Amino acid sequence: MSPINLAIVGVGKIVRDQHLPSIENNSDFKLIATASRHGTVDGIPAFTSIEAMLDAVPGIDAVSLCMPPQYRYEAAYKALEAGKHVFLEKPPGATLSEVADLEALAKTKHVSLFASWHSRYAPAIEAAKAFLAGTTIKSVHVIWKEDVRHWHPNQEWIWQAGGLGVFDPGINALSIVTHILPPLFLTGAVLEFPENRDSPIAADLQFKSGQGLAVHAEFDWRQTGKQSWDIVAETEAGQMVLSEGGSKLSVNGELTFTAPEAEYPSLYRRFAEIVKAGTSDVDLAPLRHVADAFMLGKRKFVEAFHD
Amino acid sequence: MSPINLAIVGVGKIVRDQHLPSIENNSDFKLIATASRHGTVDGIPAFTSIEAMLDAVPGIDAVSLCMPPQYRYEAAYKALEAGKHVFLEKPPGATLSEVADLEALAKTKHVSLFASWHSRYAPAIEAAKAFLAGTTIKSVHVIWKEDVRHWHPNQEWIWQAGGLGVFDPGINALSIVTHILPPLFLTGAVLEFPENRDSPIAADLQFKSGQGLAVHAEFDWRQTGKQSWDIVAETEAGQMVLSEGGSKLSVNGELTFTAPEAEYPSLYRRFAEIVKAGTSDVDLAPLRHVADAFMLGKRKFVEAFHD
Repeated sequence: MSPINLAIVGVGKIVRDQHLPSIENNSDFKLIATASRHGTVDGIPAFTSIEAMLDAVPGIDAVSLCMPPQYRYEAAYKALEAGKHVFLEKPPGATLSEVADLEALAKTKHVSLFASWHSRYAPAIEAAKAFLAGTTIKSVHVIWKEDVRHWHPNQEWIWQAGGLGVFDPGINALSIVTHILPPLFLTGAVLEFPENRDSPIAADLQFKSGQGLAVHAEFDWRQTGKQSWDIVAETEAGQMVLSEGGSKLSVNGELTFTAPEAEYPSLYRRFAEIVKAGTSDVDLAPLRHVADAFMLGKRKFVEAFHD
Repeated sequence: MSPINLAIVGVGKIVRDQHLPSIENNSDFKLIATASRHGTVDGIPAFTSIEAMLDAVPGIDAVSLCMPPQYRYEAAYKALEAGKHVFLEKPPGATLSEVADLEALAKTKHVSLFASWHSRYAPAIEAAKAFLAGTTIKSVHVIWKEDVRHWHPNQEWIWQAGGLGVFDPGINALSIVTHILPPLFLTGAVLEFPENRDSPIAADLQFKSGQGLAVHAEFDWRQTGKQSWDIVAETEAGQMVLSEGGSKLSVNGELTFTAPEAEYPSLYRRFAEIVKAGTSDVDLAPLRHVADAFMLGKRKFVEAFHD
């Protein structure tokens, strides 16, 4: 099979750091064009809009969309309408309804839509899933606490309505939780909004499963010093800790699995797989939990946040 | 086929006003038990919990769940687990995730789940849908404005987080819109919260469709005097007004369709139909738009509300 001719829309930091090296090292893909208001890639034909790119380069088979979620729908719609396969960065959209709409369009057009969740491809995720499947889980605690000033300095869009606030990193935790645990639903939530912002800076979430498993998640963007991206499960087989965003698995304090980080190479392998199989991969569960939290959650106002 | 042996859980005003007469006049159903903390139905065995009822009356085939949405999941889970068909009043749950979970459980158990939207069965809905299908829609304006003090006097639960506030009536409008218009998604929203309440008293919503149709919806619970439950569409064939909550259809000012109200009899006909066919009817689109509005919407604080 000849390589999938790929275009990238929205050439920014994540593209340079993750997408480009992953594509370069994957013989299933050949990058043939980019569209971006400012960014370009050396030696690759560059356009400033997706429309201009699709018109000028008819040989494009697939498009990776890496702009902020608020602008993703229009581009995805155009690409799918033009019969291209589409890779969506996380989160797949600003609303659940638009992604459901795109999923239906991909089906009609017989092309593949990939709503990617990079944290699901962190090194120790499958080992954690296998461990949990082999025991009885008693309770789960998710701690996702980081310093927004360090990770998102002066990024205004994350604080705007629809920017998701602390759920922007938190959805990574939810993408792992929805992959390794039984189906959950929210029973209560408190969202903390800085009094000068439209998005939450912290969230405390209580979930349970049909069988009554309790899962408590804490997201906080005000963590200085040590950063926490941990999932701790108390089980019949002891305490399991999935730490550093899914990188390391420990059981009863002993490291049982780790491997080098390779999330984006895995995402592009998965994208090639679904394109070849003629299927889509769209799991809305992580974004659905976020929407549920905004719908069900109690709002609390806290100190103003200044970058 | 012998009638479906039905039980009702949560015997309150809506059950007495709507469910009981509809069941009585439908030979597909026979009411054989109720479970409710306080309410009972004359001549029908009454229990105070769904567990006690399911244990005592093994002949129950189906259960209608009419308690507030916050308590619906537990009962639905127990009924489905016990192999009963389930009818859910609107909204089908407090979160999207729990309803998705119930839908999967119904499939596993080979029973029918009905997430009912009574406004979809208002008299003029199908006539409106047929009219719109035969023309080109230019724009749509949804006006759902009522007096909360009249319709929900001293109902504390609707003001609590998860109680949905003005979306409790607004979701009826959304259940019609998602039935008669092409798929939409939210592009912007403003939610007005009384400063002493956890749920919105008003919402202004901007939607569009993939093809670019603009839909504007206004929900307001502060309307005194004339109440408004109208959907106005500007079309190539003139102005269509679907008024009084779906009861009357007018085109260019002329009444073109009306019929007596029969929403709940239609719901029970539909429930019997899916039970006989061995299918489910779960459309989450109306609740998904509400969750999207809470996730994407800008919050604005307004005057305190006192009953």
